[in-house]
Amino acid sequence: MAEQLFAYPRLLQFVTGIFSKIGCSDADAAMAATVLLSADLRGVDSHGVARLSGYVRLWEAKRVNASPQIKVIHETPSTGVVDGDSGLGLVVAPFAMQLAIDKAKNVGTGWVSVGHSNHFGIAGIHAMMALPHDMIGIAMTNASALVAPTFSVERLLGTNPICVAIPAGNEPAFVADLATTTAANGKLEILQRKNLEAPEGWIQDKDGNSSTNPHELRSGGALLPLGGDREHGSHKGYALGAVVDIFSAILSGANYGPWVPPFPAYVPMPENMPGKGIGHFFGAMRIDAFRPAEEFKRHMDQWIQRFRSAKTVEGQEKVLIPGDPEREAETERMETGIPLLPAVVQDLQELGVRFGVSFI
Amino acid sequence: MAEQLFAYPRLLQFVTGIFSKIGCSDADAAMAATVLLSADLRGVDSHGVARLSGYVRLWEAKRVNASPQIKVIHETPSTGVVDGDSGLGLVVAPFAMQLAIDKAKNVGTGWVSVGHSNHFGIAGIHAMMALPHDMIGIAMTNASALVAPTFSVERLLGTNPICVAIPAGNEPAFVADLATTTAANGKLEILQRKNLEAPEGWIQDKDGNSSTNPHELRSGGALLPLGGDREHGSHKGYALGAVVDIFSAILSGANYGPWVPPFPAYVPMPENMPGKGIGHFFGAMRIDAFRPAEEFKRHMDQWIQRFRSAKTVEGQEKVLIPGDPEREAETERMETGIPLLPAVVQDLQELGVRFGVSFI
Repeated sequence: MAEQLFAYPRLLQFVTGIFSKIGCSDADAAMAATVLLSADLRGVDSHGVARLSGYVRLWEAKRVNASPQIKVIHETPSTGVVDGDSGLGLVVAPFAMQLAIDKAKNVGTGWVSVGHSNHFGIAGIHAMMALPHDMIGIAMTNASALVAPTFSVERLLGTNPICVAIPAGNEPAFVADLATTTAANGKLEILQRKNLEAPEGWIQDKDGNSSTNPHELRSGGALLPLGGDREHGSHKGYALGAVVDIFSAILSGANYGPWVPPFPAYVPMPENMPGKGIGHFFGAMRIDAFRPAEEFKRHMDQWIQRFRSAKTVEGQEKVLIPGDPEREAETERMETGIPLLPAVVQDLQELGVRFGVSFI
Repeated sequence: MAEQLFAYPRLLQFVTGIFSKIGCSDADAAMAATVLLSADLRGVDSHGVARLSGYVRLWEAKRVNASPQIKVIHETPSTGVVDGDSGLGLVVAPFAMQLAIDKAKNVGTGWVSVGHSNHFGIAGIHAMMALPHDMIGIAMTNASALVAPTFSVERLLGTNPICVAIPAGNEPAFVADLATTTAANGKLEILQRKNLEAPEGWIQDKDGNSSTNPHELRSGGALLPLGGDREHGSHKGYALGAVVDIFSAILSGANYGPWVPPFPAYVPMPENMPGKGIGHFFGAMRIDAFRPAEEFKRHMDQWIQRFRSAKTVEGQEKVLIPGDPEREAETERMETGIPLLPAVVQDLQELGVRFGVSFI
C-alpha cells in the first residue's frame, strides 16, 4: 500500500491529455483536469484522479458527452437554469458558477440551478471561484442514492455536499465544504481498503440497524445523514441533504432522490427517471451588495482570529477554521507532490497506454 | 407539572395586549404576538409564550426598543441590509423577509441581512412567508454563544438555526427548521425540568469532556454542534453554525460569535462588542425564476410521496418529511389549545396583573 508521490504539473498534463483524447476541446480538457485535480491537491483523494477511469467509463457508456452544448435555458436578472447537455460536471459547473458571478456583478447576487449534468468533483473548487471577486460563493450537488433518511431502510439521497466560501482580509478565506452525511463516502472507502471497523453512527445495515461494517453498503446498507440517528439529530442531516437535492434537481429539471444516475458506469440506470442527468446549484453574493468589502473583511479577520485562538480541549492544538485542513494539504502537496496508491497508479498507466498519453 | 390548555385566540389577544402596553404600535403588537405564538402552535414550546416575560425584561433593560425606526440602510436590486433599531426581532424579521420577497418579485431572488435586532422567535414562521408567493423562503439568525466549536472548550456560537421552506403542490410544503446543534436548547430544558440525563453527544463539560448532565451549561459546559464530536462530523455542524453567524452578522454589522448579546436581561453584555444587536439573514427565491411553478410543484409532490412511502426500519410507521411534526402540532393545537406548564401560566398571570391585561 506504499503511496508514490507525483508532481502536480505532471498529473495535470496527463489528465488534460486523457480528457483531450476522449474528445474534449482544449479549454474543456484543461478545465476538467484542473477541477478534478483540485480534489487531490486539497486532500480529498476519493474525488480526484482516482476517479479518472470512472469518468472515462461514463463516456464509453455514452453517459458523458465530451463536446456538450451547454445552454442557459431560463433566466432572470438574479437567476439562471443551465442545461449541461450531459457534459462533464467538471466543465458544466464552472460555466454555471461563472454565470452566477456575472449576475451578482449586475444585481448583487446570482443563483444558478443546473440539470442534465454529471459529477463535478469537489464542491469547494466551484464555490471558491467567487473569492477573487470579493463575493461569497456557494456550491452544492446531488449524487446517486447512498444515504437513508431518518427511519428509512431505503437509500434515497446522495451524500449531497454543500460548500460556502467566504472571503477574509489578511486571514485565508473561510471555506466550509461538507457532505451532509456523518462521514463522506471517501472515508468509508479508506476503512474498506484497510479492513477497519467504522464508528457507530456512520452506517446502517439493510434492516436499518446500526453497523460498524464498512462493507455494509454492498449488502443493502446505507450511509447515515449527519447526526447519525434521530436522538443525535439525523433528521437535520436528512433535511439538509434534501434541500441540496431539491435546489439542485427540482429547480433545474434534473433527477432527484433515488433516481439520480449512478457514478459507476456498470450500474444500470434507475427506472422511470423524472429528469435529466444529475443536478447542481450555485450561488454568488457580492460582499459590497451588503457592506463595503474592506469593512466586511476586517470583521471576518476578527471572527477567524477569535475562533482560532479559542481555548482548546486537552490534546488539541487549536480550533480549526473551515478550510484550514484543505488549504494546508494544498500547500504541502503543491510542493512535495500528490500521493497516489499503487492501484490508482496502475489504473492511470493503463489509461495512458490505451489513449497514447505518456504517464511516466 | 400538569399542563393546562389555552385557546390560541385567547393567548393571541393577551400577548398582543402586553406588547401594546410596552409601547408597540397596534400593528407591531399583533405581528409580534402572532410570530411569538407560532412557536407554541408548532410545538416549539421553548421559543413561544414562555419567553414573553423575557422579552418584557429586555424592554425594561432598554435592550429592546418598542417603537423602532426600522430602516433599509443599503440595497441593490437583489439585496438589502436592514437596521432594526433595537426593535423586537419578532417585528424586524417580518419587515426584512417582506423586503426579500419584494426583491424576488422584481429580479428573481432577494437576500436581506439584518443587524441591530433582537430574538425573532422561530425561523420557520419567517421563511414560510415566502410560500404563498410561490417562493422558496430561507431564514436564519445568530444567538448568544452556548455552543463550543469542535476542539474548543469556549462557547463561541449560538444554536444558530436555519429554515428552508419550499412550496409543494397537493402535498404540504417542505419546511426544514433546524438548530445547527445536535439538540436544540429547548430539548435540554425539558431534561433539566425532569432531571433526566442527556444522551451522549449533546453537551460537554467545562473541560470539553462529553457529559450527560443537562445542567452542565451552568458550570461552564457547552452545547455541541450537530454531529457531536469530530468522529461524527461535529466540524460540519460547527461550519454550518458559523455560516449562519457570518451571513447574519458580518454582512449586516451585527454582533457575532461570543459577542452576541444574551437573551436573559440579567446577564451582562459582552465587552468590546464589534457590532449592533443580533443579526438575521433572509432569502426568497421565486420558483418561476427557475422553472414554471406548476412543474416544480408536481415534482415536489413526487419527491415527497416517494420519501414518505419509503420502507421504514422496524417500529417506525413512516419516513417523515421536514415540517410534518410541526404542521401536525399546529393542526392539533389550533383545535384543542396550547398546553402551558404551571410556571408559565403563573408568569403570564403576573404579567397580566402588572400591565392590566386580563389573562383569564
